[in-house]
Amino acid sequence: MREVSIVGIGQTEVGEHWDRSLRDLAVDAIQAALSDAHFHNVDALYVGNMLAGELAAQRHLGALIADWAGLGPIEAVRLESADASGAAAVRMGVLAVASGARDVVLVCGVEKTTDADDQSTNAAWSTGIDAEYEAVQGVSVPAIAGLMMRRYMHQFKVQREAFASFAVNAHANGASNPHAMYQRPISAEAYAGAGMVADPVGMFDVAPLCDGAAALVMCPTTMAIDLCPKPIHVRASAVATDRLAVHSRRDPLYLQAAHASSQQAFQQAGVAPDDIDLFELHDAFTILAALSLEACGFAEQGQGIQMAQEGAIALRGRIPISTMGGLKARGHPIGATGVYQIVELVMQLRGEAGANQIDARLGMAQSLGGSGGTAITHILKA
Amino acid sequence: MREVSIVGIGQTEVGEHWDRSLRDLAVDAIQAALSDAHFHNVDALYVGNMLAGELAAQRHLGALIADWAGLGPIEAVRLESADASGAAAVRMGVLAVASGARDVVLVCGVEKTTDADDQSTNAAWSTGIDAEYEAVQGVSVPAIAGLMMRRYMHQFKVQREAFASFAVNAHANGASNPHAMYQRPISAEAYAGAGMVADPVGMFDVAPLCDGAAALVMCPTTMAIDLCPKPIHVRASAVATDRLAVHSRRDPLYLQAAHASSQQAFQQAGVAPDDIDLFELHDAFTILAALSLEACGFAEQGQGIQMAQEGAIALRGRIPISTMGGLKARGHPIGATGVYQIVELVMQLRGEAGANQIDARLGMAQSLGGSGGTAITHILKA
Repeated sequence: MREVSIVGIGQTEVGEHWDRSLRDLAVDAIQAALSDAHFHNVDALYVGNMLAGELAAQRHLGALIADWAGLGPIEAVRLESADASGAAAVRMGVLAVASGARDVVLVCGVEKTTDADDQSTNAAWSTGIDAEYEAVQGVSVPAIAGLMMRRYMHQFKVQREAFASFAVNAHANGASNPHAMYQRPISAEAYAGAGMVADPVGMFDVAPLCDGAAALVMCPTTMAIDLCPKPIHVRASAVATDRLAVHSRRDPLYLQAAHASSQQAFQQAGVAPDDIDLFELHDAFTILAALSLEACGFAEQGQGIQMAQEGAIALRGRIPISTMGGLKARGHPIGATGVYQIVELVMQLRGEAGANQIDARLGMAQSLGGSGGTAITHILKA
Repeated sequence: MREVSIVGIGQTEVGEHWDRSLRDLAVDAIQAALSDAHFHNVDALYVGNMLAGELAAQRHLGALIADWAGLGPIEAVRLESADASGAAAVRMGVLAVASGARDVVLVCGVEKTTDADDQSTNAAWSTGIDAEYEAVQGVSVPAIAGLMMRRYMHQFKVQREAFASFAVNAHANGASNPHAMYQRPISAEAYAGAGMVADPVGMFDVAPLCDGAAALVMCPTTMAIDLCPKPIHVRASAVATDRLAVHSRRDPLYLQAAHASSQQAFQQAGVAPDDIDLFELHDAFTILAALSLEACGFAEQGQGIQMAQEGAIALRGRIPISTMGGLKARGHPIGATGVYQIVELVMQLRGEAGANQIDARLGMAQSLGGSGGTAITHILKA
């Protein structure tokens, strides 16, 4: 298996892009990544997207975006794993280069949710949970998160206000990320006073669905070392799944997929949680941030919240998370999010994270689909 | 790069499955493939599907089907390349095994179109063509095929009746495939007398959208030779794309993606078109069958029709196509079709094709997305 490295990154601002079409956003990110890599030709394109089929009446994004970006008749397909679609595309890029089948590959995650009304977008998002056993009952993705959060509060005797630490941290970091959707810090009081989305999930517990695109250029490490001043190396790539419906899981508060994929990733990289310098996790909901820290071995079960309250997740903490704002403040352009996480990790490992820069040599990113049915983990090294 | 082989195949009957849900169909095919391979455990599942997000309000099929099939917390993602989604899943399976990342992988293509009305299904199918430049004008996938067919008739001075040979051949072969949707031969007169779908595309020029699932088990060739009495070897796997909108192509009658991916496949396998014993091509429309034969080097441009009329595509012909009925008679369960093609190729190469058996050592399958924006080619060897 060939070693794989990342030699180019690109991203659009995250937010509401009323003047740009889905394909334009993708091309913007791709051109930025190719320019960053100083590459003109690539062998393949893997696209992560969840909702364009429904929200833009457009599937077949592999061929479309290869065409629109002027990449020529290259290999191109689309991957979908609900919210983890972007990370699934990264996974396929890693396999293509590792196998020797392709040398230089592009990965692009793209989503445009603002072309549809909120109700349609929310309904479409809920196709990531079980249609026949969850969504059919009227629950949406935020409602499932609400059920998990309430159960957590009950089981571990935690007050709702304790979850504020995740949102406050994410917004503090997003404030100095020029690509973030929300660039303003929030206070714990603002968190407590915000309206409910799906009680106890409040407005500051849930990441905003929005528009954005991010892209990566990857190639074999041997080539990267020759061509790139600061190649970032992929030390692990692991996908795992769980029962799709939360009610089917033995413990609704244990993210088995997150656990399994992080364990595989640690093993591939030959490292332990203590070796990880930062962790870009899937904070689509504050409850998922807490459960991810626990499932991946950064906190004991029931201790994720306390860890956040103690400041361990801050930029200068023991295990910084959401260093560029996370899904909460950078925004959650669904199928693009998994690629944004990797782009931000590369920025940190290159030392290009500006005001948010931390001292990091080894970083981990994990993207979840739905309520944790899929978890895709990558570990990168400077 | 490790060599990859196929050690198990499974399929459901193709047709209208009113009593089976999408997930049930997928599980049926997976269980059949695992049983055929005598395997119980797999490391990963790659799912090909185009339309479940829209027609069943269900995305995230990787996790769902891994869950429903009881495969445990394995790696699972979904791939989509319009009609070529199943073949895209095969491609990812090949990369996963070839890279060494996974040893035993399942590939499953599944589609269920009959839960929605015909108009919704047709509109959803048309998300495989360009939403902003083609579908927005009111054209559908059959309408695009109609434009291509009329241009072909004009440019190469061909009568509409000449296309009958493809439909007659496909239905003749489907008649003895117990899994086919249509198991009755048709005559050239029936073809000529059938109603129009999108003039000049008649009812017998277009493959029926329907329900079905097919699955494969793949592993490294070294393992396959130890474990399987008749492993079938993947000698080539190639994806290529074209401009998505037909009007953007230099020649609307030349399938550049089909050409590029078949050329790559021939090169990988070290063979020429003359070495191929059968060709499971993408006859979603008779015009695409003709254009595929031409783009892949089996016929000169403008000669694909004549080749069919001369009987070269029949079971005893020079290059048999659609040997189990093709998309036309076996049926076109969209995201499953690319996997059905491989399953049928394996049956032929194993000598398990029953009444349709031909003498074959080397077979090729090619799946197209939309109007040819994506082409995915695999070459298999007994």
